[in-house]
Amino acid sequence: MSNQYLDPNLKVFSLNSNKALAEEIAKFIGVELGKCSVTHFSDGEIQINIEESIRGCDVYVIQSTSAPVNEHLMELLIMIDALKRASAKTINIVMPYYGYARQDRKARAREPITAKLVANLLETAGATRVITLDLHAPQIQGFFDIPIDHLMGVPILAEYFKNKDLQGDVVIVSPDHGGVTRARKMADQLKAPIAIIDKRRPKPNVAEVMNIVGNIDGKIAILIDDIIDTAGTITLAANALVENGAAEVYACCSHPVLSGPAIERIENSKIKELVVTNSIALQEEKKTGKVVELSVASLIGEAIIRVHEEQSVSVLFD
Amino acid sequence: MSNQYLDPNLKVFSLNSNKALAEEIAKFIGVELGKCSVTHFSDGEIQINIEESIRGCDVYVIQSTSAPVNEHLMELLIMIDALKRASAKTINIVMPYYGYARQDRKARAREPITAKLVANLLETAGATRVITLDLHAPQIQGFFDIPIDHLMGVPILAEYFKNKDLQGDVVIVSPDHGGVTRARKMADQLKAPIAIIDKRRPKPNVAEVMNIVGNIDGKIAILIDDIIDTAGTITLAANALVENGAAEVYACCSHPVLSGPAIERIENSKIKELVVTNSIALQEEKKTGKVVELSVASLIGEAIIRVHEEQSVSVLFD
Amino acid sequence: MSNQYLDPNLKVFSLNSNKALAEEIAKFIGVELGKCSVTHFSDGEIQINIEESIRGCDVYVIQSTSAPVNEHLMELLIMIDALKRASAKTINIVMPYYGYARQDRKARAREPITAKLVANLLETAGATRVITLDLHAPQIQGFFDIPIDHLMGVPILAEYFKNKDLQGDVVIVSPDHGGVTRARKMADQLKAPIAIIDKRRPKPNVAEVMNIVGNIDGKIAILIDDIIDTAGTITLAANALVENGAAEVYACCSHPVLSGPAIERIENSKIKELVVTNSIALQEEKKTGKVVELSVASLIGEAIIRVHEEQSVSVLFD
Amino acid sequence: MSNQYLDPNLKVFSLNSNKALAEEIAKFIGVELGKCSVTHFSDGEIQINIEESIRGCDVYVIQSTSAPVNEHLMELLIMIDALKRASAKTINIVMPYYGYARQDRKARAREPITAKLVANLLETAGATRVITLDLHAPQIQGFFDIPIDHLMGVPILAEYFKNKDLQGDVVIVSPDHGGVTRARKMADQLKAPIAIIDKRRPKPNVAEVMNIVGNIDGKIAILIDDIIDTAGTITLAANALVENGAAEVYACCSHPVLSGPAIERIENSKIKELVVTNSIALQEEKKTGKVVELSVASLIGEAIIRVHEEQSVSVLFD
Amino acid sequence: MSNQYLDPNLKVFSLNSNKALAEEIAKFIGVELGKCSVTHFSDGEIQINIEESIRGCDVYVIQSTSAPVNEHLMELLIMIDALKRASAKTINIVMPYYGYARQDRKARAREPITAKLVANLLETAGATRVITLDLHAPQIQGFFDIPIDHLMGVPILAEYFKNKDLQGDVVIVSPDHGGVTRARKMADQLKAPIAIIDKRRPKPNVAEVMNIVGNIDGKIAILIDDIIDTAGTITLAANALVENGAAEVYACCSHPVLSGPAIERIENSKIKELVVTNSIALQEEKKTGKVVELSVASLIGEAIIRVHEEQSVSVLFD
Amino acid sequence: MSNQYLDPNLKVFSLNSNKALAEEIAKFIGVELGKCSVTHFSDGEIQINIEESIRGCDVYVIQSTSAPVNEHLMELLIMIDALKRASAKTINIVMPYYGYARQDRKARAREPITAKLVANLLETAGATRVITLDLHAPQIQGFFDIPIDHLMGVPILAEYFKNKDLQGDVVIVSPDHGGVTRARKMADQLKAPIAIIDKRRPKPNVAEVMNIVGNIDGKIAILIDDIIDTAGTITLAANALVENGAAEVYACCSHPVLSGPAIERIENSKIKELVVTNSIALQEEKKTGKVVELSVASLIGEAIIRVHEEQSVSVLFD
Repeated sequence: MSNQYLDPNLKVFSLNSNKALAEEIAKFIGVELGKCSVTHFSDGEIQINIEESIRGCDVYVIQSTSAPVNEHLMELLIMIDALKRASAKTINIVMPYYGYARQDRKARAREPITAKLVANLLETAGATRVITLDLHAPQIQGFFDIPIDHLMGVPILAEYFKNKDLQGDVVIVSPDHGGVTRARKMADQLKAPIAIIDKRRPKPNVAEVMNIVGNIDGKIAILIDDIIDTAGTITLAANALVENGAAEVYACCSHPVLSGPAIERIENSKIKELVVTNSIALQEEKKTGKVVELSVASLIGEAIIRVHEEQSVSVLFD
Repeated sequence: MSNQYLDPNLKVFSLNSNKALAEEIAKFIGVELGKCSVTHFSDGEIQINIEESIRGCDVYVIQSTSAPVNEHLMELLIMIDALKRASAKTINIVMPYYGYARQDRKARAREPITAKLVANLLETAGATRVITLDLHAPQIQGFFDIPIDHLMGVPILAEYFKNKDLQGDVVIVSPDHGGVTRARKMADQLKAPIAIIDKRRPKPNVAEVMNIVGNIDGKIAILIDDIIDTAGTITLAANALVENGAAEVYACCSHPVLSGPAIERIENSKIKELVVTNSIALQEEKKTGKVVELSVASLIGEAIIRVHEEQSVSVLFD
Repeated sequence: MSNQYLDPNLKVFSLNSNKALAEEIAKFIGVELGKCSVTHFSDGEIQINIEESIRGCDVYVIQSTSAPVNEHLMELLIMIDALKRASAKTINIVMPYYGYARQDRKARAREPITAKLVANLLETAGATRVITLDLHAPQIQGFFDIPIDHLMGVPILAEYFKNKDLQGDVVIVSPDHGGVTRARKMADQLKAPIAIIDKRRPKPNVAEVMNIVGNIDGKIAILIDDIIDTAGTITLAANALVENGAAEVYACCSHPVLSGPAIERIENSKIKELVVTNSIALQEEKKTGKVVELSVASLIGEAIIRVHEEQSVSVLFD
Repeated sequence: MSNQYLDPNLKVFSLNSNKALAEEIAKFIGVELGKCSVTHFSDGEIQINIEESIRGCDVYVIQSTSAPVNEHLMELLIMIDALKRASAKTINIVMPYYGYARQDRKARAREPITAKLVANLLETAGATRVITLDLHAPQIQGFFDIPIDHLMGVPILAEYFKNKDLQGDVVIVSPDHGGVTRARKMADQLKAPIAIIDKRRPKPNVAEVMNIVGNIDGKIAILIDDIIDTAGTITLAANALVENGAAEVYACCSHPVLSGPAIERIENSKIKELVVTNSIALQEEKKTGKVVELSVASLIGEAIIRVHEEQSVSVLFD
Repeated sequence: MSNQYLDPNLKVFSLNSNKALAEEIAKFIGVELGKCSVTHFSDGEIQINIEESIRGCDVYVIQSTSAPVNEHLMELLIMIDALKRASAKTINIVMPYYGYARQDRKARAREPITAKLVANLLETAGATRVITLDLHAPQIQGFFDIPIDHLMGVPILAEYFKNKDLQGDVVIVSPDHGGVTRARKMADQLKAPIAIIDKRRPKPNVAEVMNIVGNIDGKIAILIDDIIDTAGTITLAANALVENGAAEVYACCSHPVLSGPAIERIENSKIKELVVTNSIALQEEKKTGKVVELSVASLIGEAIIRVHEEQSVSVLFD
Repeated sequence: MSNQYLDPNLKVFSLNSNKALAEEIAKFIGVELGKCSVTHFSDGEIQINIEESIRGCDVYVIQSTSAPVNEHLMELLIMIDALKRASAKTINIVMPYYGYARQDRKARAREPITAKLVANLLETAGATRVITLDLHAPQIQGFFDIPIDHLMGVPILAEYFKNKDLQGDVVIVSPDHGGVTRARKMADQLKAPIAIIDKRRPKPNVAEVMNIVGNIDGKIAILIDDIIDTAGTITLAANALVENGAAEVYACCSHPVLSGPAIERIENSKIKELVVTNSIALQEEKKTGKVVELSVASLIGEAIIRVHEEQSVSVLFD
């Protein structure tokens, strides 16, 4: 390794959700990943062995709480407990993808607020800091009372499209009502206008229609969302855009959950290309020709170095 | 009072921010407001005297943390401390308006998340429940670990417009990118389409323009926001709507902060009518001919009764 | 239902781990199980809908944290969060089987104490009481600061053998060094002596031998453990007993984890009968002819009634 | 600046209550005040911008919670929240004057103990240490569970009178029953006797009289209190001393609240000179010819240096 | 028992420090003391057996933390733990005497604030309310965040002297600088003036003298303190009063600690009578002819009833 | 002192329970014990004076909570409070013997779990780490949420017997059912078999008999327990072993509580030698010819050094 990081008190550990990203981050920083094994007993209980002393160290644990989310979250909580009892100086949780982030409020009676529960569980277990990326709602920062460094993946996505020699006028499209601010931010970077997919039911007992608010006629539409899960909304949106006159349609997101029918829907849709980050590890079968994966390793690696060296992290946001 | 509430363990107290609303709520429930005086010493320190025993009672304290927000918040915290030490059974905070709600995330480096701080302060002081209305972001519910009943004022606003015999097609307009979901909810109730004011700067060093996304031509535009503070955005939006062909423009919001130049701006704007709730007490000089005030007293009163009698509050949301 | 329980404030909910037992408990008490659905989104996140108001109610949630333990534990934590935010009066967790109980101390460097972590997570989420059965170590009671009612399943197992007309002298055998106290308790109820399997390695690099401490010659040996997981220890023990002269061998335990090769090993072993409780739901394919399942439903149901009616629970232990 | 402090991890910030003192302290230490702006939005909400990175720094925030006390207290709490989220290593609150200190017990039924509430709020927000001066009751130290360094301003007041060439016998006078210990301490430093103003009501419905316990005849009386607020007690006391034969009367206190009619009363009283510290910033109009202001900047500056360098602070008390 | 208290949920338990007072309180209320044994193992560890179910009960535990203070405090903490785990509804600690109350601030460097530590320990163990009497400093109320009912014993002492036909003018004397407020309160009830013993050292290396501030010549002096421990101060004060012309001297206090040489000093002093309450159980050998013991049983019993019935306790203070 | 430890931030303080061990540990490390006095006031309250600055230091406090346990525990709690308020950086509690460890679960209804209470009290007071030795149950580690280093004394005991030239076959005997694992561990080190004393009551109303499970005939039996308190069990066991054919009997334990009749019983028993550690200070009269005391000073001293230097402590376990 050419650039070896010198302070031995910085330790980076990876759990099981995204080892490739963790390797890439470790390489960026210039450290070896810490030695630990995270296995399951025959009955499914998680067993963690940390195989090197971490007394007095600043430990960074990399774990996206992507599917299987409950396994990955429990791995993380148990790891924190082990680190705390083994006298780590600080326990810094690096969650490129924050699972359960969409359960961030009571939308209906007697619902949990699981995103807050997760924050409480992490603090109770002993986390002292969280580093994360593109939270579904930025208010989730306030679910924590420990410091949280909230990184932005949107500039990486925007940069990709800037460097792509798109031939025509671009419009950034929010696939739903809640994502307009995100679309506006990307639009600012690409100096483009926005549009919104206004999904609504014209009358009771009538099917929802994908109404489009804003001018997309003849334009290259880039749909942006933070999470693409089953890809139902985004593919319906893409098709509606084309039907309503868009020249071509790209889609992008920070967190490619891509569960259930997602890949099939995308393949069958009018989406020309789906641009994502590697905040969530993509299984090989999901890496179809349409999917472009951008790495957040250097962004996260730089943030870890800055946190460790007590330099400002906010410069990464500019 | 005709409908006297029978359980003497339900006590309603009002602090200083919105006594008129508190009186109205108390009347709705059928109780007298609890006896207490909240005064200031000569040096500005708050002095609270609770003048009746509240041992073992379920106490509801009504206080909007509107301007002067720091005075009103400290009144509330000190009242909670006094109630806790005086052995109240439960301390239920009724905040029709939740001050500092807009500081709900770190938008820039080294910012506080004051809305979370407020939640922490209330829990530390001893609050056991919060009842509030139209939070700036619904995620603020998750800032609390005590139960929170989040009431909806938008149906009251929508009902007003439904009953008003508007002559023409209506379009609901969000004055910014973050409020589109709110606009869509109101639009559903009025069976109307939506539009968005897309304020953006075309080039660096060029003035922002009020771009309109969506079709408003010849329509009656109703601008909706949760909070109208200095009224800059909303009045620019209104004027832009008229300039771009809207037939007439109404505006509405749950929380009429209306600070600084707000009233003057509204008077000078193209807004025909500004419809608000009494979640914040309007000073007399702000009650101009354009301002219509709707009461949330029965909504809140009904919620208090349901909480006290352990009935579902969610039915109020339907 | 003949014996309907009258107080509507007692609500019993079942999550997914052991619905049959929950049904049996509810029937014993004389209530319907509370209406709620616990499903998974496509990406694996748990979604909970509580479909009836539980404001002010004493809620009992039945969930063994058996395999898949992380799913079942997260279901429980999310349910607690939902109940807390929905204003339940008390949240009583009924865990017939307490997963991760064997990770109750640091046996090696840098191990977690996951059983304590689980206790912390439950308290953080909002549990106000725990009812459980035959904890792997009774000290786990001290992991909680909320009240915990610790029920005993051993008498149910003992009763079974008392009623079985065993022809010959009985000896109760502990399969390892840590279980001797448990064996002694059962032996007291059956007025029998004890023996211990003293598994040890005579010399380094020599296979472990199943040494037997105590007299088992010609006797009917009953092996007792709290948990039988992969059944390695217990089947080796059974075979060793027979080889050393035991007339026949029974085995029993409170918690039939029976993971991996367990059933196959038992079928192939000298164990004549394996007696277990239904603290963990047995999949159909595990219900072989050798397995006898005894119900703890009335024990738990009676405990719930006593807790709810504020009567002594300790009488159940005598 | 001649004496520049070398460790860049020591950061001193000033909020709005007493910037002159903060400047003086910073100069004593040899640092520039940290860059931050604390402003108000139009609606009165406080906005804090910390304009330099403080990651990993030991931050000292100087803020007297003098009038307007609720504004100043909220400034402080919000600043602490911002510092905590911005990853300060320690957050040391320097409160030369601790507002609400007189609400330190329940004197009557259903009173708050606001001084304790303030302590709880500071700890909840994230303060890790408090440095303060001449608390109204020393027991307030016990309201905190974080370390508190309690500095003494009385020696500075005593030194002033020692250096003043007072012609005649001196007597130190406590203006009320609770301040006798404070008077005794000052008397020890000036080698003087004490007297007490024993304000009492001889009979019901008769005016209170200012009885004097102790001998003051022909002596130079120095009245001492910790806080002079409206100056009613101290000026009545001064006049009673003169009427009862005192040669002349000085008054002194650590904390010149001087609210409402205070300055007018002092001007009109027999008090020859009022000696105070700059723990509270005096408005210009209060700096009448009678008022002498002594600085606590070097005392506090020295304490900050000693705290930062982990030297004993107690030597400052001798 | 003639007046039997009807609600079986009120349970009164006594630990070992003051069983006579507990019996008297129980009789006043009309209940039997709860059955429990508090014994010591051979090695000194405390063993507590609560011998009746207290599930769902409001439990009042009577224990003065008088000498041996550490034994009595640990008895109390362990009892609270047992009650909490046995599902008491509320755990109300009745401490007629609060040990360690004099360690209520840091008077010197590196001192503990043990009175606060005790408050923290009681809350951590699980106490939900404290009822106490004549705290050494009223600020100790603020050491708690649970409700505390602070009863006043001074009126009982004052009543005794009012009913005693004292022949001559009375003066109430504070034996030190910190007790003047207490003296003034008693003086108000007896319509008497006050004086203070001003113990001071005239020059370094010269013995302290008992200076008297105020007029005591020919008067009947009543010394009042909250605690009389070794009786050094009070007996020196009494003798100084007589030497300086007092006609006769009485002494009184709420809490007769009377440790070490106390009784001998009192017997040998000019004190004519020492009036105390039974907040601390007096050993028989301390009940000399000079000691008069007044009971606080009805005061405390009435407070317990009022707390239990959720009536105002403050009326007891008037 | 030859080996002086260089880092002045490591401070070791001893309280009163075991000063000889503390001196030995300090000498091993190469430091002087910190200066502090722990005395009692006349009324039994503990007074602690820390006589040197410990700001920013890592403080190790050595205190076994042996008899008088409540005094020793309160000394420790008060010391922690003093250290916390005096700004110690870390407060590391070294408890060679953990009092109340046997009260580690609810064995009967309404029992406290005093071992957990003690853990809670230590954390509340402000301890940041615990170093202890041979806990009665290893699960007590989980009673803490701060790091705990659990040292093993059994190897020291085993080493002693290995070095003693015992003539004959050895068998390690557990005196009760709960200690078999401990016996097995020692047996592994001595390559010996085990046996168990199976105390049981053959029939109701018949005396208990000391049944022996395992072969001890003609062997040298070594009884091992963690704590020997009144020595009833161990001496009955020893005698039973001899009666049943053991050649000779040794006994050993980590913690020689030896209360009440213990020494007399041992002297009168068949035990040839009782081997203990100095985790508890033995009074001189208990050091009879049968008692052999081994020191744990170097084990603990090494652990302190390793903790302070952030090296692995687990190597001490191998």
